[in-house]
Amino acid sequence: MYYIGIDLGGTNIKGALVNEAGEILREESRPTRAALGAETVCDGIAAVITALAEGTDAIGGVGIGCPGTVDDASGRVVYAPNLGWRDFDLRAAVKERTGFALRLGNDANAAALAETLVGCAKGAQSAVIVTLGTGVGGGVVLGGRLLTGCTGAASEPGHMVIHSGGEKCACGREGCFEAYASATALIRETKRAMAAQPQSLLHTVAKENGTVDGRTAFVAAQRGDAAARAVVERYTDDLACGLANLVNIFFPEVIALSGGIAEQGEALLVPLRERVRSLSYASDCAARHTRIERCTLGYRAGVIGAALLARQP
Amino acid sequence: MYYIGIDLGGTNIKGALVNEAGEILREESRPTRAALGAETVCDGIAAVITALAEGTDAIGGVGIGCPGTVDDASGRVVYAPNLGWRDFDLRAAVKERTGFALRLGNDANAAALAETLVGCAKGAQSAVIVTLGTGVGGGVVLGGRLLTGCTGAASEPGHMVIHSGGEKCACGREGCFEAYASATALIRETKRAMAAQPQSLLHTVAKENGTVDGRTAFVAAQRGDAAARAVVERYTDDLACGLANLVNIFFPEVIALSGGIAEQGEALLVPLRERVRSLSYASDCAARHTRIERCTLGYRAGVIGAALLARQP
Repeated sequence: MYYIGIDLGGTNIKGALVNEAGEILREESRPTRAALGAETVCDGIAAVITALAEGTDAIGGVGIGCPGTVDDASGRVVYAPNLGWRDFDLRAAVKERTGFALRLGNDANAAALAETLVGCAKGAQSAVIVTLGTGVGGGVVLGGRLLTGCTGAASEPGHMVIHSGGEKCACGREGCFEAYASATALIRETKRAMAAQPQSLLHTVAKENGTVDGRTAFVAAQRGDAAARAVVERYTDDLACGLANLVNIFFPEVIALSGGIAEQGEALLVPLRERVRSLSYASDCAARHTRIERCTLGYRAGVIGAALLARQP
Repeated sequence: MYYIGIDLGGTNIKGALVNEAGEILREESRPTRAALGAETVCDGIAAVITALAEGTDAIGGVGIGCPGTVDDASGRVVYAPNLGWRDFDLRAAVKERTGFALRLGNDANAAALAETLVGCAKGAQSAVIVTLGTGVGGGVVLGGRLLTGCTGAASEPGHMVIHSGGEKCACGREGCFEAYASATALIRETKRAMAAQPQSLLHTVAKENGTVDGRTAFVAAQRGDAAARAVVERYTDDLACGLANLVNIFFPEVIALSGGIAEQGEALLVPLRERVRSLSYASDCAARHTRIERCTLGYRAGVIGAALLARQP
């Protein structure tokens, strides 16, 4: 049996034909053209699905990973600001065009499902996937199934307050994990350190790359810059704080990181593992500990996970 | 079919015979006598089980709610400081004495299971139960099953940091939810306010009751005392912060409170609901909201939940 997964983004509709093992057999893509309205976007989705289904009569289902809040039970996109959609019946629109009755998930959740079932956490009974990008997204998979709330809403571990009364978050609260562990937060702290320390190597690194991004502090820290090291230390502390919270709530087999910051790999993971361990509840008498890993599927986690949504019971 | 539930406490071994609906048919109790060693405690547990099983041949199973960290898969108590147990094979000890192969759970988790299946959250697909006592305990029930971690460890939402670098918690971390939302934390803040405000009504209320406890600030606040009101406001804010974090992580149908502080009832719940709602992610476009309730089973939640552990698949 094969499954079609669609990763519906603000820019592109990416699709893939995926087998039972989560391997991609064929890919398709179209521009989203969200500005032309939901009907145009759905025409594009239908074109991708039709192209992927061509010549295959063993399609077990179609899944779509969608940004924002979705409700798989009703087949509706509750709110997707990136697309300008509110309470849109995506399932009906796609069914009308293709005949397929699709399964719906949040895009970060779909990626988390893929990493858990066929990626870095394959074989784990429980995993929390945390994406360190512009924001902090993620997904929780327990016993092979995505954790969604009573309305089908995705788990939002990025919007767990760790510094009550702290930095303003995009969600409106203050002190969210996202406001400390996102790439956006790291860039904010890097710029603050640069303003406070005109002699710091951070300026040199930023000039070399033409910009301040999530790598700037890590590169300058590796070259021995004290201000950069302080930024990286604080970032790692806050990341460890939020991940240890998730350990204490879920005690999952695996926590895996994706997104731009995760590209630091072991340079980030080695000190992070030590801190999370020391902050985990009763860690000195625990029989096993949560493994902290890096995601392995890259941007394809989105389409693979969307296809796996269609395979969910 | 009937089930036997045992709530193993530091002082008493409480047991109940429970029917399929979670109703108690008979109760038994023995002193725990933990100081006399695990074998003596197990003799007591066996005596309670035997007394409850007498005259009934339709016993579907026995469950024990135990303080500390337990592992139902192995049947072992990993660590229970209250009992002085570390890596103790409770299942084998009870099986040897009674012939019953018991199911094991953390005591707060067992109570959470009872409240979800037959108590205040009956019928809910997902619930988070939070106990506001000496510490902050709790349990998460998803699709009728307790959330336990990869080692069988209970979820510990009380040890989620909400004020990074804040008040010292009994677990060793700083700023845990427990260090702000427990009765212990409320008493700490009440005493601080009393020390800072010698004119406050808090002193009068404390004298009337002969002690400072979790009610002192609520009573003085109701009589119009400004210092007490400030304590209750801050306490409610911190409680709302932690509960909103749990909403954003689980979006459960119900969050229910138990423990001494929950006895404040609607005086606490009304302002709390409003704050949690305003702090919940995307609450303005959510189709449904988490209900925030008070637990209804009281101290019997422990034995009922233990019996329901035996009914779990």
